[in-house]
Amino acid sequence: MTYPDKLAGIRRQMKKDGVDAYIIPSADPHISEYLPDRYKCIAFTSGFSGSAGTLVITQDFAGLWTDARYFVQADEQLKGSGFELVKLQAQAMPEYINWLISVLPEGAAVGFDATLISVQLAQLLETELSFASIGIKSDRDYLSEIWESRPDLPANKAFLLDLSITGKPTTQKISEIREALKKYRAAYHLVSSLDDIAWIFNIRGTDVKCNPVVLAFALFTPDAVSLFIEPNKLEAGDREELQKAGVQLRGYQEITAALNAIPADATILIDPKKNCYALMQALPQSVKVVLDTNPSTRFKAVKNETEVSNTRETMIKDGVALTRFFKWLEENIGKERLTEISVAEQLYKFRAEQEGFVGESFDTIAGYREHGALPHYKATPQSDVELHPEGLFLLDSGGQYRKGTTDITRVVSLGKLTAEESRDYTLVLRGMIEGSTARFPKGSKGYQIDAITRKPMWDHALNYGHGTGHGVGYFLNVHEGPQIFNPSNLPIEIEPGMITSVEPGLYRPGRYGIRIENLVLAVKDQINEFGEFYTFETLTVFLIDTAPVVRELLEPSHINWLNQYNQWVVEKLSPHLTEDERSWLEEKARAI
Amino acid sequence: MTYPDKLAGIRRQMKKDGVDAYIIPSADPHISEYLPDRYKCIAFTSGFSGSAGTLVITQDFAGLWTDARYFVQADEQLKGSGFELVKLQAQAMPEYINWLISVLPEGAAVGFDATLISVQLAQLLETELSFASIGIKSDRDYLSEIWESRPDLPANKAFLLDLSITGKPTTQKISEIREALKKYRAAYHLVSSLDDIAWIFNIRGTDVKCNPVVLAFALFTPDAVSLFIEPNKLEAGDREELQKAGVQLRGYQEITAALNAIPADATILIDPKKNCYALMQALPQSVKVVLDTNPSTRFKAVKNETEVSNTRETMIKDGVALTRFFKWLEENIGKERLTEISVAEQLYKFRAEQEGFVGESFDTIAGYREHGALPHYKATPQSDVELHPEGLFLLDSGGQYRKGTTDITRVVSLGKLTAEESRDYTLVLRGMIEGSTARFPKGSKGYQIDAITRKPMWDHALNYGHGTGHGVGYFLNVHEGPQIFNPSNLPIEIEPGMITSVEPGLYRPGRYGIRIENLVLAVKDQINEFGEFYTFETLTVFLIDTAPVVRELLEPSHINWLNQYNQWVVEKLSPHLTEDERSWLEEKARAI
Repeated sequence: MTYPDKLAGIRRQMKKDGVDAYIIPSADPHISEYLPDRYKCIAFTSGFSGSAGTLVITQDFAGLWTDARYFVQADEQLKGSGFELVKLQAQAMPEYINWLISVLPEGAAVGFDATLISVQLAQLLETELSFASIGIKSDRDYLSEIWESRPDLPANKAFLLDLSITGKPTTQKISEIREALKKYRAAYHLVSSLDDIAWIFNIRGTDVKCNPVVLAFALFTPDAVSLFIEPNKLEAGDREELQKAGVQLRGYQEITAALNAIPADATILIDPKKNCYALMQALPQSVKVVLDTNPSTRFKAVKNETEVSNTRETMIKDGVALTRFFKWLEENIGKERLTEISVAEQLYKFRAEQEGFVGESFDTIAGYREHGALPHYKATPQSDVELHPEGLFLLDSGGQYRKGTTDITRVVSLGKLTAEESRDYTLVLRGMIEGSTARFPKGSKGYQIDAITRKPMWDHALNYGHGTGHGVGYFLNVHEGPQIFNPSNLPIEIEPGMITSVEPGLYRPGRYGIRIENLVLAVKDQINEFGEFYTFETLTVFLIDTAPVVRELLEPSHINWLNQYNQWVVEKLSPHLTEDERSWLEEKARAI
Repeated sequence: MTYPDKLAGIRRQMKKDGVDAYIIPSADPHISEYLPDRYKCIAFTSGFSGSAGTLVITQDFAGLWTDARYFVQADEQLKGSGFELVKLQAQAMPEYINWLISVLPEGAAVGFDATLISVQLAQLLETELSFASIGIKSDRDYLSEIWESRPDLPANKAFLLDLSITGKPTTQKISEIREALKKYRAAYHLVSSLDDIAWIFNIRGTDVKCNPVVLAFALFTPDAVSLFIEPNKLEAGDREELQKAGVQLRGYQEITAALNAIPADATILIDPKKNCYALMQALPQSVKVVLDTNPSTRFKAVKNETEVSNTRETMIKDGVALTRFFKWLEENIGKERLTEISVAEQLYKFRAEQEGFVGESFDTIAGYREHGALPHYKATPQSDVELHPEGLFLLDSGGQYRKGTTDITRVVSLGKLTAEESRDYTLVLRGMIEGSTARFPKGSKGYQIDAITRKPMWDHALNYGHGTGHGVGYFLNVHEGPQIFNPSNLPIEIEPGMITSVEPGLYRPGRYGIRIENLVLAVKDQINEFGEFYTFETLTVFLIDTAPVVRELLEPSHINWLNQYNQWVVEKLSPHLTEDERSWLEEKARAI
C-alpha cells in the first residue's frame, strides 16, 4: 500500500464518518516520545520517521506539522506521500489548532484516537475548537482498518535493579509518592509514563528501542499500589520481590477496568501530559480529577547519591570508548572505506566492550558534512555516505549502561577547516561553556540557562532551532523531564541533582552542522546575603577538540576552562587507557 | 485611631460576620498600581506606604505580604501596627493563599472586597481555597466603617491630546480594537484600566499622582463605545470632540448598570488582570466571558512613529535638566545644607523649566548611602538626611512631559569610593550594558533579556530582588505592560516599538545601593538565514559616571559602549546647554 493509498483510505473513513479533519499524533497510550513499532503511526501513514510531529488530514489537505530539527528530513521523506511539511514556529506547540479553526466551518468535527492523545492536548483541542463551534470525536481509529500486519505489542522481558544501582528501594519511592499525594488530597494516582514506572518500581525492560522501559501502568489506591504488566514479562523471583514490596501485579489490559471501578467520590491525581485521554475517560464521571505533574517525575529528575556516583563512573567508561573511537577514526580515515553507518557500528563496538553497557541511548547521529546540518539525522543505507579526510563530522551518540545513561556530541574536522567553520565552532563552544559554567540563583528555570547559552551566538546574529538541553535519565530515557533548557516559559526550577545536557549548535543547511554537548549536574554553589546560588558540574568526560578554536572569539576565562577540562579528561581516562591511547589523548588535550 | 485600633475594628466585623480571614489588596476598582487617596487601604490600615503588598488578617495573625523591594521599608513602617512583614519569595505572587490553606480549617471563610480584587486573583482564590474546602465571601468591605473622613474620589479635570502628540486618532484606535475583538467573537469589551482608557481616548487627567490618568470605564458594544466618566471632568469642547469620534459619554457610576443590561447571549472580552471581580459579577450569568489581555494593552505598548520621535525629543529635555541638576549638586555639596528632599525639589525645578513638563512620573527616589539600599525609598521629613561630600548617592526619577515619559537612575559618589563600591558599580553597569545592547531573535521574551542582564552579577554570586525592567508609557504610566524584563515566565514577546527600562541594581542593606537605568526602544536589527533579530536603541540621554569604573571587570566592548554613549550624550545635549554646562558635561564624558 503506497502512502497516497493510505491517505485515501483514511479520507474514505473520515467521509463515511462525518469527520472533517483527522489528527494523528506521535504517541502511544503512555504518551511516550520513543514508540514501540505498533505505534509508529506517522511513519506508517506518511513515511516521516522523525520522533516529533503531528499529521493533520482534511479532504483537501494533508500536512505534517513538525519543528526546525526535522525540516530537511521531512522535506525529503514526505516526497510523493501526499503530505506536505508545515513548519512549526515553536517546538511541540499544536499550531495546527489555529489552522483547523481557519479552514473548518462551524459545526465541523475533528477526529482522533483518544488512546494516543494526552489529556492536556485533548482538553486544549476541546476548548479551542468549541470556541469556534467545532466538535471533536475522540474515539476514532482510522489506522487499524488500513494497517495490515500491524506489529503486536512487544512481549520482551523485564527485570528489577538492585539497590547498589538504584540507591533507593521501591517501598521508599512509593511512600514518598503517597506523601506527595496528600497535598492534593488525592488517594488515587494513575501513572502511565513508562520512565516514571521504571523509576518507581526499579524495573527496566526492552520494549522500546534505546529506552530501557517496559510497557505497564501503575495505579495508587488507598490500600495498594498496582502494577499493570503482562505476567510473562517478569521472572518469578522479580514478581515475588515486587509483591514483597507491597505491589499488586495485574494484567496490562486490566487498567481500564480498574479505572472504571474507582469509587464515585474518589479524588485522583493525573499528569495531563503523561496520560492518554482515553484512560481519563474511563474514570467514573463523578471522580474528582486533579491535574498536575506526576510526583515521581520530579523525584526521578533529582538523582540520589548512588545514581550520581554511578553516573560519574559510567562517564569514564563512555569516555574510554570515545577515546578509542576517535583515535581509530583518525588513524583509519582515508585508508579504508568508512561511512556514516560503519563508523557508528564501530563506535557501538567500543561501547559494547565497556562493563555494564546495555545498548545505545538513542540512534547515533553520525552526520558528515551537510548531514551534520540535520540535527536529528540518522543515516540509512540510502543516505549513507563515505567519510573522506576533509570537512566536518558531527557525532551525537550515547549509551545505556546499568549505571547510567550518556549523551555526548562532538564535532571534528577530518581535514582542513575554513575560517567560517572555525568561527562557528568557536561560537558554539563559547555558548556551551557559558551554559555549563553558569552560576544562577536558586529558583532559576531552564529558560534562563538557555538565554545565557545562546547569547554568544545571538551577539553574532546566529541561532539554532532546537533546545539547549534536555533532562537525562539514569539508566533510563535520554530525554527526561521535567526540566528542560529552552526558550519556552516552562516554570520548572533547576534543582541540585538534576542531570541535563548543554548542547548549543549551528547549522548551515547543505554544508555542515556543529553541535557540542556535555551533560551537567546541577550542584549547590554558595549562600550569601544575596541568596543561594547553584552551578553545574560537568559529568561528560571526553575531550573537546581545540584545533578549530579561534582564540579572538573567546575570553581568557573560556580558554582556561577548555584547557582545564581537557586536562581533567586526561586524568580521569588515563588509568583505563593503553600507553598508546594515553599519548594520543594527551597530545589532543594539549593546552592552547 | 491607631493602627492596632483599626485592626481590632476589622477583626470585630470579621467575627460578627463569620469571616475567618480578610484580604486587603493594593488596588482600586481599576486594579491600578498607583492609587487615588481613597483607595490607599493598606497605608490606612497598617501604615505601610509601598506600592505593592497585601494585608491578610485572621483573629490570630495580621501580616503584610510584600516583596524584596520593600523589606526594609516595611520592617520600619509596620513597627507597632500589629502587622508583621511576610517576605514574598516572588514579586506579586499571592503566596498568602498557601498560608491561608495551612492555617484555616475546612469550612472556614475568606472575605474580601470584590471591587478591589482582580478577576484573576478572585478566581485563583476561589479555586485554590475551594480545593481545601474553604469558602469565600467576596462582598465584604470592613474599611468604610472604621475609616472616618475617607477621601472622596478625585474630581480633577481631564483633557484631550491632539494628533501631533498621539500620532493616532481615537477613531482609529477604536476600530483597531474592534478588529481585534473579532478573533474572540466578542462584540462586547469592558476596559477598566486607566492607562488603556487614556490611550484609547487620547485623554489625560490628574486623578492619580504621577500617572496622568482620569477615572473612567469604557464599554465596547456592537453599536457604540461608551466612556463612563464624571461629566464635569471634561470641558465642553472635549466632550464634543469625543462625541464626534462616536464615543457616548455616561456617568462614572453607571458602569454597573450598563453591565447588568448586556444581553444574555452576548460574548464579552475582559482582561482578568485589569478588571475588578465586582464588575464581572455585575454581568448577567449567561453572558459568555472571554478572559484575555486587553487588545489596547499591546497596541499601546508598541509606540507609533510620532510617539517615538516625540519621546526622543523629550529625552533631550530630561537630559538637559539632569545635566543642570548634577552640575549644581557637584558645585554645592558640602557648601550648603542639602538633603534628600531638598535635592529632589531642586531636580523638580530643573525639570519644570523644560517645555512640556507636566510633573513627576513617580516619586523621586533620592537615596543617600544606606537609603540607596531601599530600591523604592521615598524620603520623608522623618527619614530625610543631609548629603555630605562622601558616599554613594542614588537618584531614580522621571518626568511626565506632554511628549513622553522619562525614568532614569544614576548613582554618583559624592566623595571617594571604596574598592567594593567601585566593583559593585562596575558589575551593575556591565549588566546594564549587556541588557541594553542585547541582540535577540524575534519572539524573545522579557525573561531572556533579564537573564542576560543579570549574568555579570550572577557570575560574582550577586543578585537583586527586583525586576530588570518595566514597560514605560508615553505621557502615561511609568509602569506599563504587557512586557516586563524579569525572571518570571510571562510569555510576552518583545516587539519593535516597545519602550522598556533596563535597570539592574545591587543593594548592601545598611550601607549603600546601586542601580543604573536607561530606557530602551526595541528595534529591528537584521534578517538572515537564522531568522529575524531585534535589538535595542537607548533612548535616555544622560551621562553615566565613569569615575567608579574598574576596567578589569569590563570587556573592551563594554568600555567602547560606555565611551560612545557618553560622547553621544554630549552631542545630543550640547546645543541646549550654556557654555559652562557644556564644558562640565564634556569633562565628565571624557573617554576612559
